[in-house]
Formats: sequence, structure tokens, C-alpha cells
Amino acid sequence: MTRLKETKLSSKNVFKGSLLDIFVDEVQIHNDKNKVREYTKHPGAAAVIPILPDGKIGIIRHYRYPTNQIHIEVPAGKIDPGEEIETTAKRELQEEIGYSPQKLTFLTKINPCIGYSDESIWLFLGEDLKKVEYVKTDESIEFYPVSFNKAVELVWTGQVTDVKTIISILWLEKLKRES
Amino acid sequence: MTRLKETKLSSKNVFKGSLLDIFVDEVQIHNDKNKVREYTKHPGAAAVIPILPDGKIGIIRHYRYPTNQIHIEVPAGKIDPGEEIETTAKRELQEEIGYSPQKLTFLTKINPCIGYSDESIWLFLGEDLKKVEYVKTDESIEFYPVSFNKAVELVWTGQVTDVKTIISILWLEKLKRES
Repeated sequence: MTRLKETKLSSKNVFKGSLLDIFVDEVQIHNDKNKVREYTKHPGAAAVIPILPDGKIGIIRHYRYPTNQIHIEVPAGKIDPGEEIETTAKRELQEEIGYSPQKLTFLTKINPCIGYSDESIWLFLGEDLKKVEYVKTDESIEFYPVSFNKAVELVWTGQVTDVKTIISILWLEKLKRES
Repeated sequence: MTRLKETKLSSKNVFKGSLLDIFVDEVQIHNDKNKVREYTKHPGAAAVIPILPDGKIGIIRHYRYPTNQIHIEVPAGKIDPGEEIETTAKRELQEEIGYSPQKLTFLTKINPCIGYSDESIWLFLGEDLKKVEYVKTDESIEFYPVSFNKAVELVWTGQVTDVKTIISILWLEKLKRES
């Protein structure tokens, strides 16, 4: 670690919005040169791949403004201040598809954007789902449940490009292969 | 698409660095409410999972300042202005591990960060590698070749958290399963 690590010399918060919190830091790298690093701080997020009571996978279609595309996604969202990660996972599932999981299993942690963000996403499997009140939020999403085989096919045919969703589906596939 | 799509009302470039290019847009969403979207524009990137002449997978250990961690990664980098994506892929492989692929196969395209970036990463498999001049750059990386089985194990044990690397390894695993 020591040789590769970069040492902070200065840090400047150049933009703070409601989502992005952008910093420009000057750092010293391994060969004693100075470099500039630009990145956003992020509170982290939780994502859940939900298995619905009928066995389908409860994914969504979600319009994302930055890419100007509708993406196939697992329900997910940012951690609120002070919130436990499992609470985030359950809350987002309720907000986005109107179900609450009685069983939540941690799958893995991923870093989507290590070049310019400290974001981590904790991936969960949601099972034993109970229908709950569905509070319609302002998000541009629609419910898009598909069979497990269809979900896997959406990955291998390149129709899912969202990384948390690709990895969640393949992780579930591996669990099913082994069970 | 029409119902989910969001319409741009205004756009402001609040920060432009050498990597990040941050915009704050006001948009109208499906229920006619106005919302603010914060994101960075990104030129896109290429990543290559390289199979070395001895059969090992030519991954690297790469210190990333935003996460303050050394990540296990496939060689990758941003597209230079006007550059063909295959050229980016070959260039990054040469810069980061000192090999040039005689055979480059497109695997899939991913979007790592759809909440706040328009970045796409094109993933390739690099084969028939030829050793070439290794120009040491300022990047904080070291070569970390591992067997294919070890690479897969690094994914399932959570030791790889970088999304382009997880997906590249699992895509290669699928190709091997089918061949």
C-alpha cells in the first residue's frame, strides 16, 4: 500500500449541490510528483434484487437524465444521514416497487466509479416479500417484473448496462447454481 | 419512453476541471413537476481483460485516491478526443501492463454511474498478447497477474469491488463455460 498510496497536500470543495459534493485535491504520488485529483464524495447506496411472491425478479425501468436512457435496474437508492444500510435497502424497495422483504441477505459491496467518486453500493437479495403501501414518488420509474431466466438473458444480451443490476443478477445466478 | 423521459428546461456548467465537467440542469418530469439534476459529462472509457501468453489474467493493483484504496482492476482508461474505442483499449493495455493484443473482442458496454454521470465503459477481451515497450506512466499501479480460477475467486469472495473488473471476469467465465 505505502508505495502506491497518494498523499493529500491540499483540498478544495469546488461545488456542493444536493447530490454532488465535488473536491479538487492536490496530491503527492509515489515518484514525488504532484498531481490533481477531482472527485465527488457520496454517502453510499443500497440496492436490492427482489424475488416476488410469484418467483419473478422485481426489477424496474428507470429513466436516467445523465445518460438520457431508460435503464433496467434493481431498486436502489442513497443512504440517508445516519441510516442503517438495511433500512435504506428496505425503504427503497418499498418506495420503488411497494414491497417489504421479510428476509434480506447481503451479497457484496461494489464501487461503481473509483476514478471520480468514493461511492460504495451494498447489494442485497430480498426474499419473502410482503405487499405494502406504495407511496408514489417523483422518480421516473415503472415496475418491470421478469422471470429469473429472462433477467439473466437481459444481462448476456447487453440489454442491462447498469452495473449494480448486472452484478446483482449474476450473483443471484451463482447462488442458484450452487443451491 | 415518452412518459418517463425528463425534459431539459435549463443547464448550467458549474465546474469544469481536467476530468470532471459538472452540470446542474433544471428538468420537467412526468408529473409536470420541476426537478434539479446534477451530473458530470464523461468522454467514455475502454477496459480490457487480457489473457497473457502463460494463460494468466493480466490484472493490476491500482491505488484510487477517491476511495483511498488499492483496487484490483482490469487495465482501462478514458477515450482521448477523436480516438477509436479499440485504439483506447490497445493504448491502455500497453501503458498499464506493457502488452499489445493481436486479437481484441468486444464483450459488452456498461454504465457505471447512471445517477450522476453519462459515462459508458466498453469492455474487451484481449488475446494473443505481444510484449511491447512498457512506458512507465505516473499512475499508481502494479502488475498483478493471476490464474483464471483465482480471478473468479477474487470476485466471489468480494476482493474485487471495481465494477468493470467484476463484470469482465464474469463475462470471461461465461465464455469459457460455453466453449
